[in-house]
Amino acid sequence: MREWILGRNPVQETLRAGRREIFGLAAAENLDPDTQVEAIFKLASDQKIPIKRVPRDQLDQYGSHHQSLALQVGEYPYADLGQVLGTAEDREEPLFVLLLDVLKDPQNLGTLIRSAEAVGVHGVVLPYRRTATVTPAVVSSSSGACEHMRIVQANLAQTIAELKEAGAWVYGLEGSDEAQAPGELDLSGPIAVVVGSEGEGMRRLVRESCDFLVALPMRGRIESLNAAVAGSVALYLVWAARGYAGAGGAGPAG
Amino acid sequence: MREWILGRNPVQETLRAGRREIFGLAAAENLDPDTQVEAIFKLASDQKIPIKRVPRDQLDQYGSHHQSLALQVGEYPYADLGQVLGTAEDREEPLFVLLLDVLKDPQNLGTLIRSAEAVGVHGVVLPYRRTATVTPAVVSSSSGACEHMRIVQANLAQTIAELKEAGAWVYGLEGSDEAQAPGELDLSGPIAVVVGSEGEGMRRLVRESCDFLVALPMRGRIESLNAAVAGSVALYLVWAARGYAGAGGAGPAG
Repeated sequence: MREWILGRNPVQETLRAGRREIFGLAAAENLDPDTQVEAIFKLASDQKIPIKRVPRDQLDQYGSHHQSLALQVGEYPYADLGQVLGTAEDREEPLFVLLLDVLKDPQNLGTLIRSAEAVGVHGVVLPYRRTATVTPAVVSSSSGACEHMRIVQANLAQTIAELKEAGAWVYGLEGSDEAQAPGELDLSGPIAVVVGSEGEGMRRLVRESCDFLVALPMRGRIESLNAAVAGSVALYLVWAARGYAGAGGAGPAG
Repeated sequence: MREWILGRNPVQETLRAGRREIFGLAAAENLDPDTQVEAIFKLASDQKIPIKRVPRDQLDQYGSHHQSLALQVGEYPYADLGQVLGTAEDREEPLFVLLLDVLKDPQNLGTLIRSAEAVGVHGVVLPYRRTATVTPAVVSSSSGACEHMRIVQANLAQTIAELKEAGAWVYGLEGSDEAQAPGELDLSGPIAVVVGSEGEGMRRLVRESCDFLVALPMRGRIESLNAAVAGSVALYLVWAARGYAGAGGAGPAG
């Protein structure tokens, strides 16, 4: 099935990643190329992808956030767990995987995948059912990070068993009294972090499969965070425990 | 001006905080009270607030996320900087303030205020112009945290001068090469964190008023985070540097 990726960053990252079948790039007739648009056109022509000028209202039909660009692509290429384990091996890093136990909101899913990509997570695992999946809207809200990240669809309890087999400790994030503070745990080894759904948390079977339950410190009156924020903070705490290994670019650390 | 706060958590927190003028609670005719709704009705009747049963489609007119409840209230009660400084003094804590240099997206603004409330920030400062303000949509996306947080509207450069006068160090969050990693900085004293707008960052004058520029460690291909996530992670790093002082409830830390 063909779909449209909309917006400059998502289109650029899809072209850079080169993991999807790509059919064509549509640009608004009145689009005046700036540096980023020039770079996108170059990526497309290097890959011999046809670029077509179209009326702006044709792009509006695909969605509102097109920023004058839309890329027609084949469906999202899900990975399998073996590829995720292979990525950790290739990078010679302790395994770092994120499992999302039924995130409902595409914005939250995209935001979390973007954070996961920024801290070097090796793969993200989604369940088969009742979850947001990697739609073009999720690619947009991830700012294109989905195209670089290995994302797997699988049975989560089964995947947790396989991750344990591969030597990982599984940490479920939740706000219960049973959960431990991150400071009490060693987060530096091979790890899988499980984030539950907005409002309802992890499903029972998934929760019971975790080695540890971990809660972010919290004060104030509300005592809860947006699900994507909570997951992102947890990912940063894990990465901090690894000394921000691999950090580069704008914010290198020791 | 009267406005409608929609949804269970936002309505409940507005009633708990008791900072607004409240005119009445509207509940859908077919709403079958559960524990949370019972608690909300009790809060309302304790405060002698009229509760009115209305047809569901009347609530639909106020917005889609009403969850069968809408609270009619007076306008949001902005605080002034003196009250923020007073909150830090009352709690006997080093000052912890968040400045938002023109966040455009109500969802991001609400998410950040929710995170700020969860880590014990004493006040949030918004500029006068070109920014999302504390609308009912922002109260909703903050899950009601706006009602407990002291939020100030002010000239940011002027406010930064006043915060420095009060002994605070001002840290601007950005992704530039000039910025330092958080690990290189002492974040435990009186502090103000400045988060810039989605895409464009801080305005020049605000940026130049900062004592330090700080960048979150980052790797991967995208090398940027959602603005609300970046700000929330920065707030957690500051709070971690203070030993998670005041943490309670679900996730206490040493």
